Amino acid sequence: MTFYQKLKDRWQAHNTLVCVGLDPLPEQFPATVADAPNAIFAFNRAIIDATHDLVCAYKPQIAHYAALAAEDQLQQTLDYLRSQYPDIPILLDSKRGDIGSTAEQYAREAFERYGADAVTVNPYMGWDTIQPFAQYRDRGVIVLCRTSNPSAGELQNLHLDSGEPLFEHVARIAARDWNANRNLALVVGATAPAELARVRQIVGDMPILVPGLGAQGGDAEAVLQAGLNAQRDGLIINSSRGILYASQGNDFAAAARHETETLRELANRYR
Amino acid sequence: MTFYQKLKDRWQAHNTLVCVGLDPLPEQFPATVADAPNAIFAFNRAIIDATHDLVCAYKPQIAHYAALAAEDQLQQTLDYLRSQYPDIPILLDSKRGDIGSTAEQYAREAFERYGADAVTVNPYMGWDTIQPFAQYRDRGVIVLCRTSNPSAGELQNLHLDSGEPLFEHVARIAARDWNANRNLALVVGATAPAELARVRQIVGDMPILVPGLGAQGGDAEAVLQAGLNAQRDGLIINSSRGILYASQGNDFAAAARHETETLRELANRYR
Repeated sequence: MTFYQKLKDRWQAHNTLVCVGLDPLPEQFPATVADAPNAIFAFNRAIIDATHDLVCAYKPQIAHYAALAAEDQLQQTLDYLRSQYPDIPILLDSKRGDIGSTAEQYAREAFERYGADAVTVNPYMGWDTIQPFAQYRDRGVIVLCRTSNPSAGELQNLHLDSGEPLFEHVARIAARDWNANRNLALVVGATAPAELARVRQIVGDMPILVPGLGAQGGDAEAVLQAGLNAQRDGLIINSSRGILYASQGNDFAAAARHETETLRELANRYR
Repeated sequence: MTFYQKLKDRWQAHNTLVCVGLDPLPEQFPATVADAPNAIFAFNRAIIDATHDLVCAYKPQIAHYAALAAEDQLQQTLDYLRSQYPDIPILLDSKRGDIGSTAEQYAREAFERYGADAVTVNPYMGWDTIQPFAQYRDRGVIVLCRTSNPSAGELQNLHLDSGEPLFEHVARIAARDWNANRNLALVVGATAPAELARVRQIVGDMPILVPGLGAQGGDAEAVLQAGLNAQRDGLIINSSRGILYASQGNDFAAAARHETETLRELANRYR
């Protein structure tokens, strides 16, 4: 099953647009988990078991593992997901951006070593960056377009001499030139609903990964109205820390479930 | 000693602008190395021992280790460099691009886990991407500006409504807004000498990492004339595969030394 089919099934059959980011910060784990062997995997497993029926995807952010030399616990987490919940797509958030033979190595890392269903990629180096990932036809390539951070507009909102801002140009070439295998998606932050509406207009039904609706404070109604496609889906609404660290006590998994349910209901209210 | 001081010392006291990229591809190793335990480290060590007096830096490209789950052999390589050749700066080529807390994790990975002197970073998300690296004042942050790949111009050469192309704008804000700690550098490919000359004009003495003079075929005289700063240095001329795989026989280390010498002489001829 392709990335897109898996996602579509979760959006529709499971009625959820919510993606939980798996960004482990051991200093925020409850002490009982932090002191266990393989604490990161133990934490992730508890979060996954508590939220799996509520999500359309999980998104591990690879820096959180790399900084701690915890690649093995990332692998354990992905193996666990695949064995227990094989129909949930895994988005590896690594924002890779390199070319040719090096991008091929990154694609091997994401799709072969880790077996991810999709990976985030930075478009600054053009098609050469995208192609080695996009040639895996059953996997997804999620291209940064308009991100949610304060300085996102510093480059992305620059106006080109054609009159359009850079992020719109990225959306346009992603949809027109880079999507021959129909496996592209984009990242557009919830902090920019007007930009999200423009991107949706440009890319049709393409999936859009939307960070920033939780902790970063985007407005749910504006985001949903701007971002839904004609099928009333097409959005992957990600929250990481707002869910993972809703409680730092021993009830962290139950608190994570509660936050995930709240976000799912919030999104579905405007769907 | 800061990244910049280490580099300056190699440029001047060792009279070399050449950087060797450590991009291991085990399928291109001679059989005697490929079959050894820790083949990647053994290969890197032989290359390093054969070229250390000829280089201004080494640049391991992290995807080549990540694809093979060989983080341990990257670490062994860096430990070996630091113990044997502590005055040679290590540039970790990972082209990271993320924000805030995630960029902090990537900075921990590069500077604390691996102890690199500098790291390559993608500017598409703006200052939020750069800042967590730049705050390590003794380390270098090498920002992608105008890369050497065929599709580099797809975004980087787009003209803004101000009239300047995007890569020039990146060079301008890197020099003007992002360099308070004087630890920035840029990437500009040897395949674009006219663009390199424009960038040098904009950024003054800032170091520029130049891939593409070897295998990718840039013209040495044009590149040196375009890229040297007022001190007749300021360039880190990288070659990876052209040096590493000059021979795939048991003479690979001697062949790598020969290629490195040739590139050093070629660069110094126009210096």
